[in-house]
Amino acid sequence: MTIVDRLAVARGDFPADLALRNAMLVNVWSGEIYPTDIIIHNERIVALGSGYQAKQEIDLTGRYLCPGFIDAHVHIESSLCTPPEFARAVVPHGVTSVVTDPHEIANVWGMQGIQFMLERAKDGPLSVFVNAPSCVPATSMETSGARLEADDLAPLLENPWVTGLAEVMNYPGVVFGDEGMLDKLERFQSKPMDGHCPALTGKQLNAYVSSGIGSEHECTTVEEALEKLRLGLTIFIREGTTTRNLLPLLPLITPQNHTRICFCTDDRQPNSLMDEGSIDFMIRTAIAHGVDPVMAIRMGTLNTAQYFRLYDYGVISPGKWADMIVFSDLQNLQPKMVFRRGQLVAQDGKMIAQKPTLRPIQLPKSVNVDLAHLDFRIPATSTQTRVIGAIGDQVVTGNLIKDASVINGHAVSDTNRDILKMIVVERHHANGNIGKAFINGFGLKHGALAGTVAHDHHNLVIIGVDEVSIRRAIEAVIEIGGGLVAVNGENVLGTLPLPVAGLMTELPLEQVRQEYDGMIAHAQSLGSALPDPFMTMSFMALEVIPSLKLTDVGLVDVEQFKVVDLFV
Amino acid sequence: MTIVDRLAVARGDFPADLALRNAMLVNVWSGEIYPTDIIIHNERIVALGSGYQAKQEIDLTGRYLCPGFIDAHVHIESSLCTPPEFARAVVPHGVTSVVTDPHEIANVWGMQGIQFMLERAKDGPLSVFVNAPSCVPATSMETSGARLEADDLAPLLENPWVTGLAEVMNYPGVVFGDEGMLDKLERFQSKPMDGHCPALTGKQLNAYVSSGIGSEHECTTVEEALEKLRLGLTIFIREGTTTRNLLPLLPLITPQNHTRICFCTDDRQPNSLMDEGSIDFMIRTAIAHGVDPVMAIRMGTLNTAQYFRLYDYGVISPGKWADMIVFSDLQNLQPKMVFRRGQLVAQDGKMIAQKPTLRPIQLPKSVNVDLAHLDFRIPATSTQTRVIGAIGDQVVTGNLIKDASVINGHAVSDTNRDILKMIVVERHHANGNIGKAFINGFGLKHGALAGTVAHDHHNLVIIGVDEVSIRRAIEAVIEIGGGLVAVNGENVLGTLPLPVAGLMTELPLEQVRQEYDGMIAHAQSLGSALPDPFMTMSFMALEVIPSLKLTDVGLVDVEQFKVVDLFV
Repeated sequence: MTIVDRLAVARGDFPADLALRNAMLVNVWSGEIYPTDIIIHNERIVALGSGYQAKQEIDLTGRYLCPGFIDAHVHIESSLCTPPEFARAVVPHGVTSVVTDPHEIANVWGMQGIQFMLERAKDGPLSVFVNAPSCVPATSMETSGARLEADDLAPLLENPWVTGLAEVMNYPGVVFGDEGMLDKLERFQSKPMDGHCPALTGKQLNAYVSSGIGSEHECTTVEEALEKLRLGLTIFIREGTTTRNLLPLLPLITPQNHTRICFCTDDRQPNSLMDEGSIDFMIRTAIAHGVDPVMAIRMGTLNTAQYFRLYDYGVISPGKWADMIVFSDLQNLQPKMVFRRGQLVAQDGKMIAQKPTLRPIQLPKSVNVDLAHLDFRIPATSTQTRVIGAIGDQVVTGNLIKDASVINGHAVSDTNRDILKMIVVERHHANGNIGKAFINGFGLKHGALAGTVAHDHHNLVIIGVDEVSIRRAIEAVIEIGGGLVAVNGENVLGTLPLPVAGLMTELPLEQVRQEYDGMIAHAQSLGSALPDPFMTMSFMALEVIPSLKLTDVGLVDVEQFKVVDLFV
Repeated sequence: MTIVDRLAVARGDFPADLALRNAMLVNVWSGEIYPTDIIIHNERIVALGSGYQAKQEIDLTGRYLCPGFIDAHVHIESSLCTPPEFARAVVPHGVTSVVTDPHEIANVWGMQGIQFMLERAKDGPLSVFVNAPSCVPATSMETSGARLEADDLAPLLENPWVTGLAEVMNYPGVVFGDEGMLDKLERFQSKPMDGHCPALTGKQLNAYVSSGIGSEHECTTVEEALEKLRLGLTIFIREGTTTRNLLPLLPLITPQNHTRICFCTDDRQPNSLMDEGSIDFMIRTAIAHGVDPVMAIRMGTLNTAQYFRLYDYGVISPGKWADMIVFSDLQNLQPKMVFRRGQLVAQDGKMIAQKPTLRPIQLPKSVNVDLAHLDFRIPATSTQTRVIGAIGDQVVTGNLIKDASVINGHAVSDTNRDILKMIVVERHHANGNIGKAFINGFGLKHGALAGTVAHDHHNLVIIGVDEVSIRRAIEAVIEIGGGLVAVNGENVLGTLPLPVAGLMTELPLEQVRQEYDGMIAHAQSLGSALPDPFMTMSFMALEVIPSLKLTDVGLVDVEQFKVVDLFV
């Protein structure tokens, strides 16, 4: 029995598997830093202190040791990689556990998608905890690939890797007591339930919190975060690739409240994962801006473990999993050695652990489009149209009204005024839904961009100058079975196949990053000046973020929360 | 549905049950104190903030409000009262929840005793959480009324009022991997498991902690507590009637580690409960000695709730139970109003809540002694005997050797040298076991004291001067069905019947205290100078506390952990 071995080694009766000598332990439990040995056996820490023998010894010569980092909220899909390659991205940065909300893949494949993520995370060097997606689909003004109600999610409660309910984005549904939403809350009441309620305040916020939701990661100001923390929420400070809340929220953190604050990345693409890192980047940045190192490390370790009730994680003490990081400089924390369950899995920023053998999984075809029956023309019924106003790399948009460019009775793109046609084609059930609109801000002079990453329903989204390019782009996406494409007329400039649900690839991370950079270059060669036109495009169909968005159902005025006519 | 109502009130659509206006909220979550209204509906807090209407309003005019106190570890039996009267003792002091270890009654009645405590706690003004007793019996050198193995305890895991496994006192059993002990640890691994390992240190402490045990309440020095805290234990600082660890341990508390420290009382008798209080006394004392008030209150509220995973307790925020205390002076915290689940249950130190109707429970007879077959004589087989050395009100004893006083071939009491006969009669199964020894330090000049409170097996213990008094004392205990008696020859000076398992009475607390004080006076009239001879006597049979103790099995040398001869 494991515990019998553990006790025997802790007593000193038998040599341990591993002894890390002369560590400066960052003890997140006591809040101290002091020298000690750490003794590991059977994947767990069994003792702190001197006088133990071990089969393997590593002299840390006074370097620091702290628990492995935990990301409190991340959509792995945003890395465009499945868990094994995502792990290769974050483990060298010291992240040994993540709590992921697989709501991207769940919007495509439902429970099958969640099971895929659980399966792909198995036996890897990263502990992947899954929160059950609470909002699939996000609203009724879109067609998603799946629909998950409380009864569908219930079996996940039995899975030891499932921690709770993922970000409850449908905050009006909570506040106003939508029945299906309350069913989910009641079902998961005994587990942590994550919030998502940007800018919610006052009485509505009280209602939202009184439902039992326990965290919030959408705060952008100290005032907002403090109101939410005072009401009993645990605040996840987020630093994604584009959503950068860490520096604005640093003044929130005090010695008195920091145990109620965690760090998360939410959405990080390969480039920022590789160049900056993950939770390590947040801890480093916080310390560089004056946060006490032990407090900063707690927000990336113990606090998150405690919030998610992962009592064997996030702390270096006897009986806990031996997930640990060794580093040299407290003021500039760079993980030199990363141990997960007692195994050295990364060193000097490089992965050491072998990638586990991937069990072949027969992936259903996720792009179901009957192209022959689709009509991309927009008959002009008036002289003015609503136009989505893309704003740099932001996910919010403007709600514009512009004169239509009409040729032969049809409204068309007008590159002179940067008004381009945007199309959203339902791609899960081939139900024939097609949304058509115009968008400003992409700057394409030729061709078209298309992709199957379109939050959160992930239908097929296209922005293009002409009919030939638009049709060719859709064809190319279908040919690669989902992914990103850039075309110029009949000429396909480049593709990034994302065969897993149209969202992810199983190729090596470095290659994905390189190909993705290539795709941005193609888009820019077609005239776009956006830093990342594909990422911006992927949020233009997200009808829960203001102001004007296009889904397969039609143009959505988010403030009015209804589908509106293209023409005014 | 409750949650629907709660949401509607939090939104402000309907008036709440209760609004507490103009409170200075001690927000243990954020670590701040600031003015706000607290809005209560359906027994829960639904909102913090202004602008709410309510059916009942109380203007707190700037008085402080904090969560109800939680006692992290208490044996209710030590109050000599069952839960309803115990509640009357502690609720006016602001204690709205306790985690109790019913191991006294469990040693008499096993699961039936635990069920009795659960039943008696129902519908009362105090939330009584129960930890499953882990060590019934304490050792094999005693006869207890019941034996609880892992399989016996397992059904408790399903009870929502059961929080975890109670103090694992058999620390050698843990450290050395005793099979029955490990069975219990494995069974309760997913719950909080409380420790009890006085003075354990170094490798053995590492082994004990690595088993998954999470707390410790036996620390007496800062050095001991810091070693244990650094290893990941949550430290319960204890302030019982006699075990006074608060002042010595105050220097342990720092802003960095205080969230890992809780307050508990362990054992408090009616007098200290009534005169000093409970957790309120600890918080008051800590603040008076310089501990930050928010930190002190956290140790008596939020920290304990979090440790025991009681997520709806210990914090004032929307969705949580409305257990709250109002007080005027932060430097001298005296609960003026105590709310439990939104009801005012105590005011100005007086109970307001009606005592719930007690369901009649047919109590089995707990004193089974066949007096006719008992022989109290001690044939002298040598000229010297071992003598238990009682030391004031301490629970430890000396291990003495004295000349025997021999009359007619039998060793007898010798009041000149304060060497008295001590008898322990097995009283659960009438198995005829009788332990006989001598004890120094009680000072009786006449008569005998007897009682059925004798930790932890609670056999019948008697200390007396002569055979007549000893026999009469036992008869009297049998007549009252268990309890405490003082006799002088054939004359019964006084009795305190404890009909519930020989440990508790259902009489009013004030009466119990008065009668108990009377019993001490009787004992002192017989010559004893001890402050509380009955309490001291109750620990003279506890064979897990050094050095020499007497059980029904015989004289136990605790250091040798074996039964030894009376004569040397």
